[in-house]
Amino acid sequence: MTLKSIRYENGKLEILDQLLLPIKSQYIEVKGVEDGWRAIHKMHVRGAPAIAIVGCLSLAVELQGEVFTDKKVLRQEVEGKLNYLVSARPTAVNMKLAADELIALVNALDKDDTTSAEEMKTKFLKEIEMMLEKDIADNRAIGDAGAQAILSSCSGDGTVRILTHCNTGSLATAGYGTALGVIRSLHSLKRLEHVYCTETRPYNQGARLTAYELVHEKIPATLVCDSMVAALMRARNITAVVVGADRVAANGDTANKIGTYQIAVVAKYHGVLFYVAAPFTSIDYDVPSGEHIVIEERPDSEMTHIRDHRIAAPGISCWNPAFDVTPASLITGIITERGVFPPGELLKQRHTNSSHCS
Amino acid sequence: MTLKSIRYENGKLEILDQLLLPIKSQYIEVKGVEDGWRAIHKMHVRGAPAIAIVGCLSLAVELQGEVFTDKKVLRQEVEGKLNYLVSARPTAVNMKLAADELIALVNALDKDDTTSAEEMKTKFLKEIEMMLEKDIADNRAIGDAGAQAILSSCSGDGTVRILTHCNTGSLATAGYGTALGVIRSLHSLKRLEHVYCTETRPYNQGARLTAYELVHEKIPATLVCDSMVAALMRARNITAVVVGADRVAANGDTANKIGTYQIAVVAKYHGVLFYVAAPFTSIDYDVPSGEHIVIEERPDSEMTHIRDHRIAAPGISCWNPAFDVTPASLITGIITERGVFPPGELLKQRHTNSSHCS
Repeated sequence: MTLKSIRYENGKLEILDQLLLPIKSQYIEVKGVEDGWRAIHKMHVRGAPAIAIVGCLSLAVELQGEVFTDKKVLRQEVEGKLNYLVSARPTAVNMKLAADELIALVNALDKDDTTSAEEMKTKFLKEIEMMLEKDIADNRAIGDAGAQAILSSCSGDGTVRILTHCNTGSLATAGYGTALGVIRSLHSLKRLEHVYCTETRPYNQGARLTAYELVHEKIPATLVCDSMVAALMRARNITAVVVGADRVAANGDTANKIGTYQIAVVAKYHGVLFYVAAPFTSIDYDVPSGEHIVIEERPDSEMTHIRDHRIAAPGISCWNPAFDVTPASLITGIITERGVFPPGELLKQRHTNSSHCS
Repeated sequence: MTLKSIRYENGKLEILDQLLLPIKSQYIEVKGVEDGWRAIHKMHVRGAPAIAIVGCLSLAVELQGEVFTDKKVLRQEVEGKLNYLVSARPTAVNMKLAADELIALVNALDKDDTTSAEEMKTKFLKEIEMMLEKDIADNRAIGDAGAQAILSSCSGDGTVRILTHCNTGSLATAGYGTALGVIRSLHSLKRLEHVYCTETRPYNQGARLTAYELVHEKIPATLVCDSMVAALMRARNITAVVVGADRVAANGDTANKIGTYQIAVVAKYHGVLFYVAAPFTSIDYDVPSGEHIVIEERPDSEMTHIRDHRIAAPGISCWNPAFDVTPASLITGIITERGVFPPGELLKQRHTNSSHCS
């Protein structure tokens, strides 16, 4: 069964506690906004889309138990609680964007005289629940588009071998995943021979989270160190690399987890296809190219320690950029929910872009 | 002061305990063959040249306290104890080669009627002590040749920025180091601006050992993850990569620590010089090319655990090759104790090759 990091059924919200992974799989219930704030703040949930959805759903859970007769009271409660949820991790921009959209919605409903307070609540809850569905639907569309693009490059009904980096699966999204969604689609089509995932130093998202998801889904998978990609391409006839994106510039240059650029260089050398899987919300048309993307540098301790255990020599300094930028020239295609585009064609797609808050 | 992993003065042998590095720097005394066997077997000392030298010196320490009147007794004792030392780590070929050479020497001295038992012992001890000196002298020659080659590629008296991989320093050799010897030479010439070393997953020799040596020597140094090499080359204007070698084939293809090949690919893409530093003893003329080199695969546990702490998801399988092969086409030059050669010129050097046991 597909791993569900966010379970929302009959008004009950549960999340897979990512602080205990990969050693222990345990869900915790989120009973309202207070629990939602804590789950985000303490990083029981992580990944930008997942944070926004858990935050909004925690508000939905809370509102369900309340009865509203005054639209203004509902509007004020929604606004206050959404702003509170944004404060749980102020740098997570998706929660802020979702809050802005939902606040605009309650303002519009408040002004609409044909809508009662209870109807306003129902419409508002429906909008939140659609966020979850839309994110998963977008990921499924990405998965299918990516699988078709990769399969069309190999003759007959042969199987493929895929390499991925970092975690882009159920644990980072509302479900299914972006790059991991492509892998899931290939697997369900029975065309995936094997997937390789990198450790993704220094935070080991590949070894901890992607490996966890792949084992859970029983997808044939092997973990490699980040240093082994070139040797792997030489030894195992890799069909394609599929990675996610933190931000895609208008020209197709892609910022993603550190190490992505290196894999792209190595893929080019070995003639291996290199795809970026990302929803249109990750394409930032205000950024013309990768040069304009500022790369965050993270603390040395992420590299020098594993939990409390020191693994590097005392006194050594570290360089720890969180992301790097892969130039569009190394990217075969950008896999989106609306199809696969060569990076140079993203600009043409701009005017058909619709706004959504997942 | 240069880090000494092997101290041998006035017949007293001490080795830096590598099992305690990088957290604790502590020497242990090796009082004879029994101690030497244990130090090699328990990996208090590692690195092929270092193992051979510590083994042979442990025999030298033991012989010093004994008086010989019968040459045959001396010959038999030497032969038995050297074979015992080889058994400490049977895969370490350098100890076996050194034992074979030293056994041949005592056999020759035994047959030479002009040599007394005490003279035979003195000559034998001198031969062992020369192994230590020769290894360090070769490394210094490699360091100087490599520094000159790299400096000749940059105009004026500018400084250089070097990247290295794995550990090739005092801790893996008798002293000074091969690739790290080149870095030491550049530093002592005041032409080294900065050195970057990779973590070298999965066994972290870079983070633990190279970083330790660089901090100890006060060489300006920064640790990076193996995934950051391409981003580093883009951000920091790296002058050259210098790595060691486990084995160099006759055509220049080079087997070295896993990850070396990937760095070479990335260096080529960025137009960065890529050097292999290795003594002539590492060139195996019996191996025509890299295709003939068998790559050892190591246990999953090296990747899934750091000491007793599990870092990868339970159930995931791993691919853990210890080495990879860098094709000669990606190598700028092989830095040896006799100068720097383009890989294609190694064969010409064959007939000037002299045998030595370091």
